[in-house]
Amino acid sequence: MADTETARETLLGRPLVVFFAPRTGAVIGATETPGSVGRTILWNLIRSPFGGTVFPVNPKRPSVLGIKAYPKIGDVPERVDLAVVVTPAPTVPGVINECVAAGVKGAVIISAGFKEAGPEGAALERQIRERARRGKMRIIGPNCLGVMSPLTGLNATFAGAMARPGSVGFISQSGALCTAILDWSLRELVGFSAFLSIGSMLDVGWGDLIDYLGDDPRTRSIVIYMESIGDARAFLSAAREVALTKPIIIIKAGRTEAAARAAASHTGSLAGSNEVLEAAFRRSGVLSVNHIADLFYMAEVLSKQPRPKGPRLTILTNAGGPGVLATDELILQSGELAELSNETIEALDRILPPHWSHGNPIDILGDAGPDRYAKAVEIAAADPNSDGLLVILTPQAMTDPTRTAEQLQAFAKLEGKPILASWMGGAEVAEGEGILNRANIPTFSYPDTAARAFHYMWLYSYNLRGLYETPTPAGD
Amino acid sequence: MADTETARETLLGRPLVVFFAPRTGAVIGATETPGSVGRTILWNLIRSPFGGTVFPVNPKRPSVLGIKAYPKIGDVPERVDLAVVVTPAPTVPGVINECVAAGVKGAVIISAGFKEAGPEGAALERQIRERARRGKMRIIGPNCLGVMSPLTGLNATFAGAMARPGSVGFISQSGALCTAILDWSLRELVGFSAFLSIGSMLDVGWGDLIDYLGDDPRTRSIVIYMESIGDARAFLSAAREVALTKPIIIIKAGRTEAAARAAASHTGSLAGSNEVLEAAFRRSGVLSVNHIADLFYMAEVLSKQPRPKGPRLTILTNAGGPGVLATDELILQSGELAELSNETIEALDRILPPHWSHGNPIDILGDAGPDRYAKAVEIAAADPNSDGLLVILTPQAMTDPTRTAEQLQAFAKLEGKPILASWMGGAEVAEGEGILNRANIPTFSYPDTAARAFHYMWLYSYNLRGLYETPTPAGD
Repeated sequence: MADTETARETLLGRPLVVFFAPRTGAVIGATETPGSVGRTILWNLIRSPFGGTVFPVNPKRPSVLGIKAYPKIGDVPERVDLAVVVTPAPTVPGVINECVAAGVKGAVIISAGFKEAGPEGAALERQIRERARRGKMRIIGPNCLGVMSPLTGLNATFAGAMARPGSVGFISQSGALCTAILDWSLRELVGFSAFLSIGSMLDVGWGDLIDYLGDDPRTRSIVIYMESIGDARAFLSAAREVALTKPIIIIKAGRTEAAARAAASHTGSLAGSNEVLEAAFRRSGVLSVNHIADLFYMAEVLSKQPRPKGPRLTILTNAGGPGVLATDELILQSGELAELSNETIEALDRILPPHWSHGNPIDILGDAGPDRYAKAVEIAAADPNSDGLLVILTPQAMTDPTRTAEQLQAFAKLEGKPILASWMGGAEVAEGEGILNRANIPTFSYPDTAARAFHYMWLYSYNLRGLYETPTPAGD
Repeated sequence: MADTETARETLLGRPLVVFFAPRTGAVIGATETPGSVGRTILWNLIRSPFGGTVFPVNPKRPSVLGIKAYPKIGDVPERVDLAVVVTPAPTVPGVINECVAAGVKGAVIISAGFKEAGPEGAALERQIRERARRGKMRIIGPNCLGVMSPLTGLNATFAGAMARPGSVGFISQSGALCTAILDWSLRELVGFSAFLSIGSMLDVGWGDLIDYLGDDPRTRSIVIYMESIGDARAFLSAAREVALTKPIIIIKAGRTEAAARAAASHTGSLAGSNEVLEAAFRRSGVLSVNHIADLFYMAEVLSKQPRPKGPRLTILTNAGGPGVLATDELILQSGELAELSNETIEALDRILPPHWSHGNPIDILGDAGPDRYAKAVEIAAADPNSDGLLVILTPQAMTDPTRTAEQLQAFAKLEGKPILASWMGGAEVAEGEGILNRANIPTFSYPDTAARAFHYMWLYSYNLRGLYETPTPAGD
């Protein structure tokens, strides 16, 4: 498994590496009970090989799923990097004590019944934290789905499937949302460099994970589902640093008071004031979105295209209506249409039929073939008054969605100017959509969604610009 | 074709019936030139039989595509119900004269080059209108894609495919948007009772078509893409009447000033002030949405479920996070969470594990099986403080998405209370989604989209309530 080795080398030496590329792992509470979490996690670690050894720990059985088991973690004959703990909450402080004594470097606590269950659970968390800190052991959880590292093969979760390898680092504070997103990502072919649920953040929190994924060269964007910020200072300082090199996109649940109350009953922690948080996100260069769907759109868009240097979008279309709908959404999001320069209008006059719109949106008319698209895009892209392009295609009598997509590939890497596309329709445009997506031109079913995505890109640039201008603490 | 006959009988006697269920049709300007509109329309009329006869009209050929052709419409040996005109703009006034003389009842003018092309084109339109009015002939177009009536089989358009039969009446002011929506509907299995592009509304306008589709028992909802309102009084008066019995959902392009300017250059007509229009829509009981995707979501939701009597939504979920996200969207749209009655809380206490959320969203916890879902939904549905239900499912260890969907079917028809669902994920929930959709419980991939759909349903109810309260002209 040379690839796994390479991935491990890349990650070595960073504090949380043990959670993503362990050499040895133990499942404390491994059982054979069908449908149990202790069985599913052991099986997931075995069926998706991570290149290391797995040890079941169970005081009552000589083996679990045919693998030799040990009564206690201290009995395992090798030093264990990562322990996955699934025993009942009251037993966990003792288990962690034993892990520390055995030199375990990190533990993922899957078990529930802590802070979210009341004061006794909170007391258990305090005991665990104290023991782990003394023993310099890091902990993810409790009350979480676990950790997947698709690039090393590690699946230390009780999810029903393994995520695809890719470049998105996804951190969720809801295990259930993780499983839904995982299922969705397998259908949409979205791949991950890391995929984890962090539970109630007894130890490892947002700041640690953003730092870690920020340093990881295989992670190109960080996508976060957050219910509570926890250690706000750690989050913001990590985000400030990492956002400069890779996008951090967040959806914060509990943005409204009613929802925040619901979140509090769910996680046992109160969400902070929304206005304060949103301002803090902006100042840290984090892009905050409002819909689950936007999370992954934006991860894709920001990892495929350069950020715009300004808010002015040029829309190029073979049909008036979709151009107007895209304009509506752009303006409603407080975006701007680029004003075409005289040079651009003259150049377009030379290649377009006389009836073209003579303005932005640039309507190159219903009979536009691939060549007209390519020439018009080239001219529009050169306009210094424009900060980005949205190319819309609707299937009409003379339209060739596939060949037009092929022609557009040449513009996939415009200097400092993003290009997005909307190939509208179903089967007729599917091949073209595929070509554009593979050429790193993000493609949307609806032109209004594409216009919103461009505006979000600009907001991200704008937030980052604020970051460069704000003085950072000495030593940064 | 008994079914076609039935459809025709149902429609007989209404003024626009000739456009949807003609007995005879002619294509004026039919040719064999590959890729031409005149060839495509003739071929579409032949390959999708509408149960009547088609006559090509071409002064230069004895036959077109093997079908006997006639030099002029007056030469056709039978009385022609519907003429489809594709000849160049300057010839159209003469063609319409001949149609009137030959007793043609209706014409669809596909040709472009009228109002949108300048003052000469506008003059041609005036001539055509005058002649048609004198001859009592109705006209759809010019500058349009044409008309499809999937229930009779008629395809009088130059689109590349035929729409599926169904219950949505779709009217678009953009032919290009039509073709994109058509392509999309074939993939998503959305069916239509009528599917047409109305072009620049020289004669038949919004009011006529809303009246017609309002009377058509096969049309359960009317979906409109509008660029300009044209005869506002006719639109509003038809909408007021029809909205009481079936939903009218509209997306208005050019809601922002920048977009309205673009629309003006595109259609040759200025969009009215947005505020005035939106107020007029509300007072007419029309639901105006902001995104293309919402158009069809809402057509589906409103045709499958009863309208809520108030704004208060109850959310029932097996995971906290998605419930919180749905709450955020509901509140951001100015919706309301239902406050559970004491009876409801006590009843839920009897059937749920002690850790349930004790509030709305009702978190029935991650280990909820089909029976717990069914019992909790039954209790929540009976609460008089609630106006509708959203049931969310995320695939977790003990979840059975398919059997839970089966259990939910029993609640598809709650008395005066809509039920929506969000089965989150991909392959694991696909079968359950299918079961729910077939049981008329609209199902969404994202819970926040579902919450927005509920709020739109309430807005529709609210607009209608205003309609009942406003005095209508005497005789209504």
